[in-house]
Amino acid sequence: MMTSTKVKPLLVNYKTLEEFKRFKEYGNQELAMLEDLESNIVENDSESPFFGVYYGSALVARMSLYRVRAKYDKYFVPPQDYLELWKLEVLPDYRDMGFGKDLVEFAKSFELPIKTNPRINSHGFWEKMGFQKANYDVERDLGENPLIWMPTGVEERNANA
Amino acid sequence: MMTSTKVKPLLVNYKTLEEFKRFKEYGNQELAMLEDLESNIVENDSESPFFGVYYGSALVARMSLYRVRAKYDKYFVPPQDYLELWKLEVLPDYRDMGFGKDLVEFAKSFELPIKTNPRINSHGFWEKMGFQKANYDVERDLGENPLIWMPTGVEERNANA
Repeated sequence: MMTSTKVKPLLVNYKTLEEFKRFKEYGNQELAMLEDLESNIVENDSESPFFGVYYGSALVARMSLYRVRAKYDKYFVPPQDYLELWKLEVLPDYRDMGFGKDLVEFAKSFELPIKTNPRINSHGFWEKMGFQKANYDVERDLGENPLIWMPTGVEERNANA
Repeated sequence: MMTSTKVKPLLVNYKTLEEFKRFKEYGNQELAMLEDLESNIVENDSESPFFGVYYGSALVARMSLYRVRAKYDKYFVPPQDYLELWKLEVLPDYRDMGFGKDLVEFAKSFELPIKTNPRINSHGFWEKMGFQKANYDVERDLGENPLIWMPTGVEERNANA
């Protein structure tokens, strides 16, 4: 099995933020990072929740990861810290090269449960990565279609109980 | 100004769930409603969080609305009940007929603040409807691009304070 050494934490700087513009899911998060950098609220090269894969010198895949604290956990038993994963995206010319898998394997390597809200039509990928549909609960999930992955010993919480 | 009398609450039944299949954002929520109906966990014609617009006998537009309680409010000052709006969608053949606007006007008629997480490329519509970008806060928003609308007297909370 390949190791995930290709996956790098991404630092907040103008070069990275420029590269982010090539990704479809460019939104409030990236705009806020840019504003914070421009107004010196964050330092250049400060930590970001993003991890990426470079191909040569180009950022070709990325994801965001955030550790949600146990007291906010509504998904797992026992309640515990888990990772929210979002904006997993591989640029069109670099698909089917395993970069999406590398990123998800990297996320799993923390051995915490993971929750994501996938885009429509990506369920095949997530199923291959061992993710399963969480039981839908309108109050918790609203417009989300949450998928979860659990390391050994963790169970899904019964949201409706 | 037209009234929004065209907007109807949608009840959970097999006919409505069949009509939902024509919408792009068909996901865990609809599948859970179908399962609950099939296993008699919910009664036929029970309430749903959906509202819709019919054109003749066909459901051509819909949205979901959920009242989030003040104690969970992380967006507004003072903290208060607000409406989460999601799955606003008009079927392709029925666009530019004002149905999206009718649904949003209906949501506004409750005179509660509204929060939504729009799909990419729909910002022009939301701006016309008086919605504004919430200040992005990674811990609260994660992968969302929240837009908010506030009735008179309500202000946005400073998420980073």
